[in-house]
Amino acid sequence: MPPPRRYAFGRADEAIHPDSMRAALAEFVCTFIFVFAGEGSVLALDKLYKEGGPPASELVTVALAHGLALFAAVAASINISGGHVNPAVTFGSLVGGRISVVRAFLYWVAQLLGAIVASLLLKLDTNGMRPVGFHVASGVGEIQGLLLEIAMTFGLVYTVYATAIDPKRGSLGIIAPLAIGFIVGANILVGGPFDGASMNPARAFGPALVGWRWRNHWIYWVGPFIGGGLAALIYEFMIIPIEPPHHTHQPLAPEDY
Amino acid sequence: MPPPRRYAFGRADEAIHPDSMRAALAEFVCTFIFVFAGEGSVLALDKLYKEGGPPASELVTVALAHGLALFAAVAASINISGGHVNPAVTFGSLVGGRISVVRAFLYWVAQLLGAIVASLLLKLDTNGMRPVGFHVASGVGEIQGLLLEIAMTFGLVYTVYATAIDPKRGSLGIIAPLAIGFIVGANILVGGPFDGASMNPARAFGPALVGWRWRNHWIYWVGPFIGGGLAALIYEFMIIPIEPPHHTHQPLAPEDY
Amino acid sequence: MPPPRRYAFGRADEAIHPDSMRAALAEFVCTFIFVFAGEGSVLALDKLYKEGGPPASELVTVALAHGLALFAAVAASINISGGHVNPAVTFGSLVGGRISVVRAFLYWVAQLLGAIVASLLLKLDTNGMRPVGFHVASGVGEIQGLLLEIAMTFGLVYTVYATAIDPKRGSLGIIAPLAIGFIVGANILVGGPFDGASMNPARAFGPALVGWRWRNHWIYWVGPFIGGGLAALIYEFMIIPIEPPHHTHQPLAPEDY
Amino acid sequence: MPPPRRYAFGRADEAIHPDSMRAALAEFVCTFIFVFAGEGSVLALDKLYKEGGPPASELVTVALAHGLALFAAVAASINISGGHVNPAVTFGSLVGGRISVVRAFLYWVAQLLGAIVASLLLKLDTNGMRPVGFHVASGVGEIQGLLLEIAMTFGLVYTVYATAIDPKRGSLGIIAPLAIGFIVGANILVGGPFDGASMNPARAFGPALVGWRWRNHWIYWVGPFIGGGLAALIYEFMIIPIEPPHHTHQPLAPEDY
Repeated sequence: MPPPRRYAFGRADEAIHPDSMRAALAEFVCTFIFVFAGEGSVLALDKLYKEGGPPASELVTVALAHGLALFAAVAASINISGGHVNPAVTFGSLVGGRISVVRAFLYWVAQLLGAIVASLLLKLDTNGMRPVGFHVASGVGEIQGLLLEIAMTFGLVYTVYATAIDPKRGSLGIIAPLAIGFIVGANILVGGPFDGASMNPARAFGPALVGWRWRNHWIYWVGPFIGGGLAALIYEFMIIPIEPPHHTHQPLAPEDY
Repeated sequence: MPPPRRYAFGRADEAIHPDSMRAALAEFVCTFIFVFAGEGSVLALDKLYKEGGPPASELVTVALAHGLALFAAVAASINISGGHVNPAVTFGSLVGGRISVVRAFLYWVAQLLGAIVASLLLKLDTNGMRPVGFHVASGVGEIQGLLLEIAMTFGLVYTVYATAIDPKRGSLGIIAPLAIGFIVGANILVGGPFDGASMNPARAFGPALVGWRWRNHWIYWVGPFIGGGLAALIYEFMIIPIEPPHHTHQPLAPEDY
Repeated sequence: MPPPRRYAFGRADEAIHPDSMRAALAEFVCTFIFVFAGEGSVLALDKLYKEGGPPASELVTVALAHGLALFAAVAASINISGGHVNPAVTFGSLVGGRISVVRAFLYWVAQLLGAIVASLLLKLDTNGMRPVGFHVASGVGEIQGLLLEIAMTFGLVYTVYATAIDPKRGSLGIIAPLAIGFIVGANILVGGPFDGASMNPARAFGPALVGWRWRNHWIYWVGPFIGGGLAALIYEFMIIPIEPPHHTHQPLAPEDY
Repeated sequence: MPPPRRYAFGRADEAIHPDSMRAALAEFVCTFIFVFAGEGSVLALDKLYKEGGPPASELVTVALAHGLALFAAVAASINISGGHVNPAVTFGSLVGGRISVVRAFLYWVAQLLGAIVASLLLKLDTNGMRPVGFHVASGVGEIQGLLLEIAMTFGLVYTVYATAIDPKRGSLGIIAPLAIGFIVGANILVGGPFDGASMNPARAFGPALVGWRWRNHWIYWVGPFIGGGLAALIYEFMIIPIEPPHHTHQPLAPEDY
């Protein structure tokens, strides 16, 4: 066994080295993401049980439909547009300086149109069922719904940044669409019984427009934009290392990630 | 922080650059795919609930069986045949000019035979249970079923094109079988309570023949072929860029993708 | 649009070219695998429903536990031992000439020991619950159970061959553990209500020994060995092309795949 | 068919070659992991059924929330910190000499803080619901719970070692986050009805502190540390081959894996 493989205690200055601090921050954020979903799903089931809500299998159905389809949707667009499929992800990219205002605006229009056409087609295909969209559950306040959307979209956009945008993500980028789809699936198992768990203004807007339901609608714009922007700022300025000039990364065209 | 990482507003002509338009189209289509499945699964549960249909856990069972098995089936054939496993995918490849008529015909025969043998063996293994196949649910019209099959197969074949056929897919191709299997799983959570959600004429034909059930059967051929052909045309002619001659891609032999 | 991208009709001899025949065989087998699981899951739910069996959510629980754990188990051993985790996979590798008799014997002993220790520990951890293992359901004959195990293990070992053994699998090998775990999960959704769906003699033997339940036990050895051997023969001799001498692949040491 | 592809019987000394022994050990451990989860999920459903516990769909909900979110959390931190997200994984890395004491301490503080913040935010978002955390189920002894945590965390950390730490893992590392998330999901389907299935002291500590529930809490520290340490020792000293000097691997900085 070669001795250099053992670390003993580490160097005295290791704990305050920037690399160590970034690693600790990543452990902090990602344990937050995991425990939020894990413990949150237990509380969500508690709420369903106490209030005689729909059975857990309906929650699983909705979470799987979103998680699996978002994975495919991100995989099908990541090489062409960066795979946002979500105005909050586009906003995070804008806040982090990874996309121009012009392109962000173009994406937002395209995303909203996609959601509207999907909602219209669903209404047609189902003989006129009225799209449902999102609102907070009874007994849940708007502020609580807002905080939930912030926390859940924070986890989503942090995952997007780490797996699909970070210039040093390397081969990890191959599974980015899967990580993005699955964190949305997990968060729906938490937020579903409280506020529906949108994390995506386009996902909320299409059904709201076609079904003409606007109760609490602002939550599903403000929450994801705050959460997504916060994740972008933290990842862009605290996790991505400041490189010496010869390592400066050129701005990535969306086609590149 | 190096200044080139920020974009400010982008160039004035960025919005009408072909690259930007392709990216916006990809965002439009993929947000459509995602919202269709997400909101659609909510409406599907509504239908089940109102009509006292089977519990959501049965829908999840069927979606998982199809999604997980299709993933394995595509993975097991993608290097040999391109991993179609579906006459509608073969039709999309034919419409996009990625496969010859002779080979498409060969694939269709093989796919239908595989589905027939599977249905026969299931009948034998289950002591004579009659295969079920597909038909539209009560209260759903044939035209609605047709539109559903078109929309769902469109999402499937668009995903196939982006992850398994696009010559610029790169390492994304590694997760193509997973994206293909999972978009089918997600769409079953939408279309299951309405028309069974086939998206695959071979999947519908085998049980129809062995169980001798032909009600609405034409829907499960016409719908997937229209949806798959449409996705192929859009991806082939609007997303794959027209390269200058020195970048021209040679036709891919199926073995290559 | 460069003209060479279109195929028109293909060459006249394309249909009988060995490559085309291999591709058609792959489409046949993989459509069989997919339709068997998809239509089979519908029949399995029918059986559960008619006989007042356990709810579908229990079937999903068992399928997920096996599928997710097998994925992790194969991933954790594929670089060291080839990731068999199943005497039937080892038997298939032996039949295909990919492993020596000595090594196969060593693997079988290790696999059976692993299954026995797991069963003993489960008994200890659960305050003495008696392991359940496998037997055919009431109303299902031994021959039907045998045929089911053959068909399901055939799909499993064919997937193993295509994604983890085929020397030309390339980067597809990265998702091999996932495809292997998930086809087992899918098949459990088919075979669970009929014969429990083992596809793995070690999985059946450990609980049978510790719980001392031997009814129908032979099915879970003979079925997987026939199905696994058959898949190996078909893949090894009909799908893997006979290479000209300068392309001859050296035998792969298990560490290499 | 080139003759070298067939092994006949293997060399006489193959069975005692270190490579063969390592391969057999890997087959033993990984078959243990698989059968423990598979057969264990059947026993878990038995326990739920006999005691009129919550339906299986709630177990699936909790397992999916943890499995999907842990996958995303590990993917989002693996390039920065090694993707531990779990003090038991950090302990295993420390025992195996892959991380210094200073860094391990830093990680533990960050992980506990992340779990506490998640629990506080959940309390706030749900209008004061009291976090639940973990304790052994009625009829389950503390020693049984401890043994379960040891066995389940052993499987988890062995998977981490094989897919994310082993210097020879190669491209398998791409799916490491998925294998890590999914073995946790599978094990929850086993241990959930008995002791909640934590495998992660931070996951247990955050809700315990915020909800102030300390019954059986020591199990969720001692069990994962014993199981994680054991897996690290076995993998580090029995699976990773002792390389001749010119192959000596330099200690990996966490950024590298």
